Amino acid sequence: MKTANLGERKIIEIIHSHLQLLPKMPVPFGDDVSAYELENGKLAILKTDMLVDKTDMPPTMSYWQAARKAIIMNVSDFAAKGVKPLVALVSLGLSENLNKKIIEEIAEGLNAGAREYGAYIIGGDTNEASNLIISISLFGIAERNEVILRNTAKPDDIVAVTGMFGKTFAGLKILLKGLKADSKIQKTLVESVLMPRARLNEGLALSRTKAVDAGIDSSDGLAWSLHEIARASNVGFTINHIPIAKEAKEFAEANNLDPVELTFYGGEEYELVLTIKPKLWNRAEEAVREVGGQLLPIGKVTAEKQIMLEIDGKKNVIEPRGWEHFKSTRV
Amino acid sequence: MKTANLGERKIIEIIHSHLQLLPKMPVPFGDDVSAYELENGKLAILKTDMLVDKTDMPPTMSYWQAARKAIIMNVSDFAAKGVKPLVALVSLGLSENLNKKIIEEIAEGLNAGAREYGAYIIGGDTNEASNLIISISLFGIAERNEVILRNTAKPDDIVAVTGMFGKTFAGLKILLKGLKADSKIQKTLVESVLMPRARLNEGLALSRTKAVDAGIDSSDGLAWSLHEIARASNVGFTINHIPIAKEAKEFAEANNLDPVELTFYGGEEYELVLTIKPKLWNRAEEAVREVGGQLLPIGKVTAEKQIMLEIDGKKNVIEPRGWEHFKSTRV
Repeated sequence: MKTANLGERKIIEIIHSHLQLLPKMPVPFGDDVSAYELENGKLAILKTDMLVDKTDMPPTMSYWQAARKAIIMNVSDFAAKGVKPLVALVSLGLSENLNKKIIEEIAEGLNAGAREYGAYIIGGDTNEASNLIISISLFGIAERNEVILRNTAKPDDIVAVTGMFGKTFAGLKILLKGLKADSKIQKTLVESVLMPRARLNEGLALSRTKAVDAGIDSSDGLAWSLHEIARASNVGFTINHIPIAKEAKEFAEANNLDPVELTFYGGEEYELVLTIKPKLWNRAEEAVREVGGQLLPIGKVTAEKQIMLEIDGKKNVIEPRGWEHFKSTRV
Repeated sequence: MKTANLGERKIIEIIHSHLQLLPKMPVPFGDDVSAYELENGKLAILKTDMLVDKTDMPPTMSYWQAARKAIIMNVSDFAAKGVKPLVALVSLGLSENLNKKIIEEIAEGLNAGAREYGAYIIGGDTNEASNLIISISLFGIAERNEVILRNTAKPDDIVAVTGMFGKTFAGLKILLKGLKADSKIQKTLVESVLMPRARLNEGLALSRTKAVDAGIDSSDGLAWSLHEIARASNVGFTINHIPIAKEAKEFAEANNLDPVELTFYGGEEYELVLTIKPKLWNRAEEAVREVGGQLLPIGKVTAEKQIMLEIDGKKNVIEPRGWEHFKSTRV
């Protein structure tokens, strides 16, 4: 079976099954970040993820934006775990035809992305490759009990998100398929793809409240994120609110697209998806509001392992689909 | 100017010049590893480097060997700094045509490489790419005064290496150019390319002696390593011994090649190149012997900034050549 048919999750499972594991891993293999326990009981938090031009750099995205996005992709995973990134390393794969100006753009984009979230780039390496590859390693320190995991969601938790969905899916349809929207909306939708933002302030504020049971970012799509939490925590979800951005809704109407599809099955969207202890909901909501963000309840965690969308009495299964490397044909 | 003409060092300089730097970096930008100071005064040591099949995976190298080598490349830099690697993350770029068996081989090679040096792989990520890309991030903890830097060599230090050179250059000539050698020698030479070893025990033992002023690994070739230390430390070298492996010497004779070329201007060789305080030479040599290694003096650090080979009264400049990505045409 070729990688094209295996899919990213299966590949990770294969790799995992061939590794000897670090005894007492503080964060399970396969969560958004990895961790190593330091002498003082705190955790060193590590993350690596690469941007590859052919899958992660849509048309019109500049090199500056691509480099910045490579940082955001990694910071978003730290945000979902409630961990502040401190320093980053960059391993670049560059094709032979890139020139000095492009390399300067990449350097400035990397720096801008890191500084936007308070981190510094402290080293790295360059290599020859056929694609542009920007592989980022992120490092931070966290208190053990403040790291938000995937596998600790509990039945009756409130499911919440830090923003509205659908803009990047719409933006990708504009950039890749030539779909159209009203010019002002079009700008917002495209911007959401080219200039993503990580919800770091929200994640850090939430981790301090101790109100969060589980969390993940939505980079592979909202549906996929729910399925990942469900699988890791052995729970299900009932979602009764469709958190669609108004621009995405207008775009869906104008192009005769399904708003549910845009909201749940996109990707490249860096909101946080969290499960919150019901008794501490107010504390969580307030903590996010204090840092200028919003926390939107969209449903509940269930002991039953189905993941259902229930709107106006109508029930539909939320499928395990989204952006998966090797399997997805983009939008 | 295209990357093909800029060269790796220039690209790193361009990137460096566009970054805001972390205040008080414990390890200078551009050294083999990067560091971040922890609360307890110790340093978090970080390194990232990627293996790309098209430049780093010669013919007959298996996927298992390539994956293991990706780890060794990074461990070798830790070895040169005297730092023990604890955990590694892997970011993979996989082309569509790789199958399950190859992915298993890669996973096993990664695990074998990490465990060989006491480290564990604790996480990672997979992506689609046109090349096979194995990007490794390595993490460790070190005492601040035990990290061996590049920029602290001192005139009159003894220059030493942890092994003999030339085997990998000869091995690459066999694999890439079809050159021949006596069958037993050929096996040793090819093996040096396919199954490199990092001098971790030597590096760790040396860092504890406090006898080392500066160090680097020789992955870009012995000449290049000397030039890197010279540039960073503002010194020069007089080398009066050519540390050529006997198999490489025989290969050179049989193929009418220059043994100096094979020794100094190869690459993919993971010996350590160190400058040792003369008064502590015995301590350093003994420490390396105790872990089963060898420390071979090959010359001296000089205040004069030339890098010279002086053998039997004949003086020759050691040139700043070696394996540099984007510039080198391999062997």
